[in-house]
Amino acid sequence: MMPLAPWRPALARALHRNRARAYCRYLQLATINIGGKPSNRTVVFRGFVGEALQMVTDGRSEKVQQVRANPWAEACWYFTVTREQFRIAGRLTLLDPNNDVEALRSKAWQAMSAKARQQFYWPHPGQTRANETEFEPVSEGAEQPPDSFYVLLLIPDRVDHLTLRGNPQDRYIYERKSDEWSVETVNP
Amino acid sequence: MMPLAPWRPALARALHRNRARAYCRYLQLATINIGGKPSNRTVVFRGFVGEALQMVTDGRSEKVQQVRANPWAEACWYFTVTREQFRIAGRLTLLDPNNDVEALRSKAWQAMSAKARQQFYWPHPGQTRANETEFEPVSEGAEQPPDSFYVLLLIPDRVDHLTLRGNPQDRYIYERKSDEWSVETVNP
Repeated sequence: MMPLAPWRPALARALHRNRARAYCRYLQLATINIGGKPSNRTVVFRGFVGEALQMVTDGRSEKVQQVRANPWAEACWYFTVTREQFRIAGRLTLLDPNNDVEALRSKAWQAMSAKARQQFYWPHPGQTRANETEFEPVSEGAEQPPDSFYVLLLIPDRVDHLTLRGNPQDRYIYERKSDEWSVETVNP
Repeated sequence: MMPLAPWRPALARALHRNRARAYCRYLQLATINIGGKPSNRTVVFRGFVGEALQMVTDGRSEKVQQVRANPWAEACWYFTVTREQFRIAGRLTLLDPNNDVEALRSKAWQAMSAKARQQFYWPHPGQTRANETEFEPVSEGAEQPPDSFYVLLLIPDRVDHLTLRGNPQDRYIYERKSDEWSVETVNP
């Protein structure tokens, strides 16, 4: 078993100390779009799978196309209570109905609220607004996710942790080379 | 005079309704780094210059090199009180000591707190942590910014506004073609 990555305790502590705010699990995920420009949106952190950060996404969303063309990403995660930022860079992996080898999609689906599940039955995201009747609730089986439900994993190779408290602030850069993480204390 | 861009009232309303939280002025700015991968960090919104969003940055920071090589960016701005997101895509412009034609750097400098100003006299950001004595306060003239103080302007050409309240949520996409903005209501 690989030892826990050295940035994990700091991130776990941030999640714990900010837990009173539901949005402490929201982070911003940057990717590169089909035209080669940056793309950035809020996603919800849904736990770790080994060292990877788990999110879910709609298979019809633009980010799925983007990730298939270019898997590189940087997440920026700012915690408002403790005033600290994690920038987490790495590679994204998509789990769709055809490559969901460890049934991670089913597990993630079971952890979703009924309301969050409904969104995956809605009309195609980003297209001209459909008739309201197309957004009506469907009765769905709790066990198996629809084909539109994908899991997105961010496998980090660099983490930049900045704490705004303190003057000067503290900043640490963690980098992975093969399976070894190093850490350096740098100027903020 | 150009008419106010149609997304501006929605953004002004969000800023107003979230004003009790100082961090409502923090947004995440995605760019593309020298290696062609996404880069993402929290920046502070410092008002509008015409249609452009104004930020400040240290001339020695990595993002300055990135912007010189590739000006495209997308800001992701999530408002925690009203639960809405603005994704603002466009082109970045840097104002450094050599091209600060409208003295925007001086104006922005005068609006900075004494503590925020000190950071621009600190050792090179991102390099191995310097001796603590190098972070000691310097007495600085309030009138003129140091050479390390840059203004960063994001000139939007696309704004994607999503409100999480409501079921289904509301989502609007604004796009600029030359000087004309269009808006479309799309599926969330």
